[in-house]
Amino acid sequence: MQNYVLDPVVVPWRHAPLFDEATAVVDAKTKPLGALGRIESLAVQLACIQATLSPRVDRARVVVFAADHGVADDGVSAFPKAVTGEMVRNFARGGAAICVFARSVGAELEVVDVGVDADLREVAGVVHASVRRGTRNMRVSPAMTPDECARALQTGRDAADRAHGAGVQALLLGEMGIGNTTAAAALTSALTAAEPVHTVGRGTGIDEARHRHKISVVSEALALHRAATLEPQPLLAAVGGLEIAAMVGAALQGAAHGMIVVVDGYISTAAILVAHRMDSSVLQSCVFAHLGSEPGHAIALAALQAQPLLALELRLGEGSGAALALPLIQAAARMMTEMATFESAGVSGATAL
Amino acid sequence: MQNYVLDPVVVPWRHAPLFDEATAVVDAKTKPLGALGRIESLAVQLACIQATLSPRVDRARVVVFAADHGVADDGVSAFPKAVTGEMVRNFARGGAAICVFARSVGAELEVVDVGVDADLREVAGVVHASVRRGTRNMRVSPAMTPDECARALQTGRDAADRAHGAGVQALLLGEMGIGNTTAAAALTSALTAAEPVHTVGRGTGIDEARHRHKISVVSEALALHRAATLEPQPLLAAVGGLEIAAMVGAALQGAAHGMIVVVDGYISTAAILVAHRMDSSVLQSCVFAHLGSEPGHAIALAALQAQPLLALELRLGEGSGAALALPLIQAAARMMTEMATFESAGVSGATAL
Repeated sequence: MQNYVLDPVVVPWRHAPLFDEATAVVDAKTKPLGALGRIESLAVQLACIQATLSPRVDRARVVVFAADHGVADDGVSAFPKAVTGEMVRNFARGGAAICVFARSVGAELEVVDVGVDADLREVAGVVHASVRRGTRNMRVSPAMTPDECARALQTGRDAADRAHGAGVQALLLGEMGIGNTTAAAALTSALTAAEPVHTVGRGTGIDEARHRHKISVVSEALALHRAATLEPQPLLAAVGGLEIAAMVGAALQGAAHGMIVVVDGYISTAAILVAHRMDSSVLQSCVFAHLGSEPGHAIALAALQAQPLLALELRLGEGSGAALALPLIQAAARMMTEMATFESAGVSGATAL
Repeated sequence: MQNYVLDPVVVPWRHAPLFDEATAVVDAKTKPLGALGRIESLAVQLACIQATLSPRVDRARVVVFAADHGVADDGVSAFPKAVTGEMVRNFARGGAAICVFARSVGAELEVVDVGVDADLREVAGVVHASVRRGTRNMRVSPAMTPDECARALQTGRDAADRAHGAGVQALLLGEMGIGNTTAAAALTSALTAAEPVHTVGRGTGIDEARHRHKISVVSEALALHRAATLEPQPLLAAVGGLEIAAMVGAALQGAAHGMIVVVDGYISTAAILVAHRMDSSVLQSCVFAHLGSEPGHAIALAALQAQPLLALELRLGEGSGAALALPLIQAAARMMTEMATFESAGVSGATAL
């Protein structure tokens, strides 16, 4: 397995033109220096992403990309494949966790069928952009052809374009796809050199025997596609997923549009691992929402030197963690623009020490 | 120093009448079992607090209790005492961090002068309930007389009564008081037996020499008031603060009213340590918002076996961390009431393993 050694990317926005100026703005606010911790560094990042000292996050959109995985036929999930399509209907009716959380935090929700193995054409409120009804089983063949992968990437770019066109400032990446923790594990192993035993988790809740089986499936797939793991797009086609490719495209295009890209859980972070190999500057625009409880998520985050905002033991996906982190991002932006300075408020500064 | 050994309080709402029923409601939702992690246990707690399977957090109020500390004359803070009153004016004008965060998350804000060492009577939008212009210096005498402490406790109860009367479901505890990390450290040392070297931090940002001095001030105060540390209210009067006493009263009364009590940082958690000694059932109603970066905060939380929702390296107080945690609490409540079940949504369950 090829070990992609990642470049050091600590605080990738530190070299953005506005970094020093934005830091000075935060430091002048009526609070002890650094007392707002992660909210301060987040505010500086938002300023750098939007290239303004007055960042705004008035409009946020969760995009949930849904697709099926051929590898699900190998029994890697606790749930049947049919659940992907059933959950898309649940999204459309507003009953899923992400629907509730999006409403709760005031975010819009868009659901995109990138390749669910069900006929969802009559389901209203879903963007129909199916590339094919699920990927092939990565254990026996590449999950996607190069063309299918390219079309899924474009579907993600299109979603970012739609959001940007609508005035969305924060693009929250979500996904649904039975079997997709298997794909995320394969991508994470290929891109971080962590063994599958470390990147394969219990997903939706499989038992010990099925977990061992899932590890062997990922190992077999990576051995089969060894040659493809040298470059990110062939790797994505070989062991990724249609919804994961769409997230890669959405992240790259969202960043290109100057949007804040809010990364959810393990699957989303695996997509960012791929996107980062295609264009490392994407990281400047990424806010990592949370550390989930799939063990591979911490590995993927560490490889990106990413510090997630939340750690709530989530393992749902759908963009649920991204939605829960949105209020922190909005509070950080408003801190930059609305909070008084020591000077404007007439508050005494720290005494000389 | 007296070591209060705390009772085991792990998940204090586990024995509430609705615990099993609320857990079953959460388990039926369209998500893998436990996949929403801490949001699930939070939702169950909210149901237990409100004694309903349909908890609601429509109306939330941050109450910031402000008061000065005689011990600030000993040079334990990086900021002059005048900042307490200056910050109350900043609160009233809407320029402080808590004002911005409260607006951002849709919470009301009430500021109560429990004993600021400044004449704030002409400041509009502040509840004037000053017991005295700051406490006495705990290093040389009790900070409060028993009567002053009782009046400060009542001021907190009154704030909880006002909130309850207004239909507030979540009461977020905030504070402002130059010198109050010193009082929090003294209370935490007295109530957990942790040595002051572990409970005294850098507060607003003091240097090494002042930190050593602050440790010795707390040690001297605890030695002076050794007899008072046997019972919570005399301890509170001896080494607490007027705003801390008010938070104790507000927490106890808020819990009595069935409100969700959202605990902010180190000072708030020290107040809950005291409240818990007065009435241990208060913990059932407490949601601990965050782990701050004052080292004593982790000690106080551990003594209460509390698991905070956030860890953002905050050390500001004002209720800022409580405000940032509010959207998680609201999302948890809405998950209980708005999310579909496998049955209602027609989604297939997990296959037999």
